[in-house]
Amino acid sequence: MLESEVSMCFIFYSTLLILKMFIIAIITGQVRLRKKAFANAEDAVRHGGVQYCRTDSYVDRCLRAHRNDMENIFPFLFLGAVYSMTGPSYTVARIHFLIFFLGRVVHSVAYLLALKAPTRSLAYVIAQVPCVSMAIQILMAVASFA
Amino acid sequence: MLESEVSMCFIFYSTLLILKMFIIAIITGQVRLRKKAFANAEDAVRHGGVQYCRTDSYVDRCLRAHRNDMENIFPFLFLGAVYSMTGPSYTVARIHFLIFFLGRVVHSVAYLLALKAPTRSLAYVIAQVPCVSMAIQILMAVASFA
Amino acid sequence: MLESEVSMCFIFYSTLLILKMFIIAIITGQVRLRKKAFANAEDAVRHGGVQYCRTDSYVDRCLRAHRNDMENIFPFLFLGAVYSMTGPSYTVARIHFLIFFLGRVVHSVAYLLALKAPTRSLAYVIAQVPCVSMAIQILMAVASFA
Repeated sequence: MLESEVSMCFIFYSTLLILKMFIIAIITGQVRLRKKAFANAEDAVRHGGVQYCRTDSYVDRCLRAHRNDMENIFPFLFLGAVYSMTGPSYTVARIHFLIFFLGRVVHSVAYLLALKAPTRSLAYVIAQVPCVSMAIQILMAVASFA
Repeated sequence: MLESEVSMCFIFYSTLLILKMFIIAIITGQVRLRKKAFANAEDAVRHGGVQYCRTDSYVDRCLRAHRNDMENIFPFLFLGAVYSMTGPSYTVARIHFLIFFLGRVVHSVAYLLALKAPTRSLAYVIAQVPCVSMAIQILMAVASFA
Repeated sequence: MLESEVSMCFIFYSTLLILKMFIIAIITGQVRLRKKAFANAEDAVRHGGVQYCRTDSYVDRCLRAHRNDMENIFPFLFLGAVYSMTGPSYTVARIHFLIFFLGRVVHSVAYLLALKAPTRSLAYVIAQVPCVSMAIQILMAVASFA
């Protein structure tokens, strides 16, 4: 897998997107500390008292951004890996990965900064296009073997 | 990986299940629009006013169905890929993948249509059986090398 | 992939962590039954009445533990698989996998038993170290090919 240019390109963008997800987790933690809004009583007690075991709208926003990443980036890790093995042209494959990568970065920025709708939804839809395209190409490749 | 019949079969059902998850995401979005129940103020404002930034019990149901898919289908993507490399018989492997696939499709239908209990729970348990079976076979295969 | 010692070691710990996640799902279900706190009306009706369609703080805790696993263990499945293909030394790779594995087991125990802070957060941070380390090594390996 580490020998093809397409796989390399896929791994590069995938790893960056996973790091992006880790950054959202770090931001969520920092917002919890700054706003004193903890999900667990034991954390609240450590940071001032059980009254800080409470929700916060911006923490919820971070959690939604993170969850949406899980819903979309994890499937990409599978689809991209299999698609890379179907022997696509490097240029076409790179366009797939790059659109997904940029779409998801814009999605996160739009979510965390609460940019005017439909910026975030548009980024989500654009990032889904290469995913659906890869899924269809995978199904066709598998069907041709069957 | 794209050379064995077992892998092909695994990739076929996995890709269909990912598309099934994408469909749940689309349904969630459509329900949000129809019921005017948005998670984010910026979306609500675009669709009539900030008062539509609110929860809805059917949206929550869609989110739970999607989350349960993440909890179960993502592990399957890993277990199935590794299991396919342990050299199982095609017939036995196909039965594993097919049971999981059918179980998860029934689970989604039962969730979204709120079918009478325990339809959904039963589908969940049935789909878990091939996952646990594959996990055990993987551990035995790895142990035999160690 | 099933031929290298590093991959074997990765697959061993990954499969155990997936089983650990399945156990959290089982615990969640048992707590729902024991506390009569169901997310869906159809489940509540089957177990005594629609009034049991309600939240429970310990069920919520189980769900958070499970979600945190998804946020961290699923990326590990990708990072570990790719890292295993970059040709690391067995000893160094095993240390990466073992630290992540132990960190995540402690995280789950600390979450479910509500251990005094910062036990859980510390386990989370420790488990993230090998993930970030693998991500960096993957990016360097890919960059050297590019």
